[in-house]
Amino acid sequence: MFTAFSAGETPWRVSSQRTVRGQALPAIAGLSVHSTIDFPQRLDSSADWPLVGRASHVRYVEKAEKDRLVSVQAGLGRADATCAALIPIRKSDAWWMLTQDERRNVFEAQSHHIADSLKYLPAIAHQLYHSRDLGQPFDFLTWFEFAPEHASAFDDLVCTLRETPEWSYVEREIDLRLFRSSA
Amino acid sequence: MFTAFSAGETPWRVSSQRTVRGQALPAIAGLSVHSTIDFPQRLDSSADWPLVGRASHVRYVEKAEKDRLVSVQAGLGRADATCAALIPIRKSDAWWMLTQDERRNVFEAQSHHIADSLKYLPAIAHQLYHSRDLGQPFDFLTWFEFAPEHASAFDDLVCTLRETPEWSYVEREIDLRLFRSSA
Repeated sequence: MFTAFSAGETPWRVSSQRTVRGQALPAIAGLSVHSTIDFPQRLDSSADWPLVGRASHVRYVEKAEKDRLVSVQAGLGRADATCAALIPIRKSDAWWMLTQDERRNVFEAQSHHIADSLKYLPAIAHQLYHSRDLGQPFDFLTWFEFAPEHASAFDDLVCTLRETPEWSYVEREIDLRLFRSSA
Repeated sequence: MFTAFSAGETPWRVSSQRTVRGQALPAIAGLSVHSTIDFPQRLDSSADWPLVGRASHVRYVEKAEKDRLVSVQAGLGRADATCAALIPIRKSDAWWMLTQDERRNVFEAQSHHIADSLKYLPAIAHQLYHSRDLGQPFDFLTWFEFAPEHASAFDDLVCTLRETPEWSYVEREIDLRLFRSSA
């Protein structure tokens, strides 16, 4: 099952779209999210939308970490989680040339990606979509949902991650913040 | 870049096609291999050919292993490597639910996948194509090239792997042997 993020009116309205690093994405006013079984061909290959990814198996999480994550994490679609963020990320060739143990070392031993993220659960719900192997412009589409009162906690999480050694490998990053439209 | 394996006349003729586990693949007489930038839509989604995969970054190999592999492995396309094998494999949901450390443990600590494969280098050239996240019927398309005098060594390698704990997670496997057509 593929997940496609498309420019659309509902259910998510864009409150801000910021280019953190690298090339910008065409600005959109709203976002729709849908699932498809077949790979969705882009109608216009010169456009960047829709972005397509795939929820997949874990790549760095170890057993003890998974047990902790599962015990505290929340799912998507909570009624009070009316805020969301879509942060597409591409990492450098240098990252992808690293071996599994080297990447895990940067990801967790140096950057505490899982340990630091755990502090924000269950307030921040998270789903990662992989897109690198789909020939997409980004490697990951990271999606978050949270209640408005946790927006500043989410800012803290994002700032913490951006200061890590792992983020020195990020060469393109867009930060879209969204709110659920009642229309 | 995607790699597509299609039924075709050249350059590879099929000498045998055997269903090792799970559902068979429609029999073909020859195989062509080509690369495409865009995801190749299947003309007939009810057929299994072409099979599409993508060469990607390593998932289990660690730094010391990579250094050894790079120092001894051979590339594809050697003039005397007129034999080939295409072995598409799908693993079970139980495999993909494992965490990274659990999969690495089965893959190498229990099954010696890398260590045992190293013994067959550089005689057996190998390329792995990932297809699970492309929504394909197999998780991996494994491709091997070798000279005729190494065909029995290749049989040994395949038999060794099929007896490992890792292989208890394989739920579909097809074994195609090929020879390069001089036509």
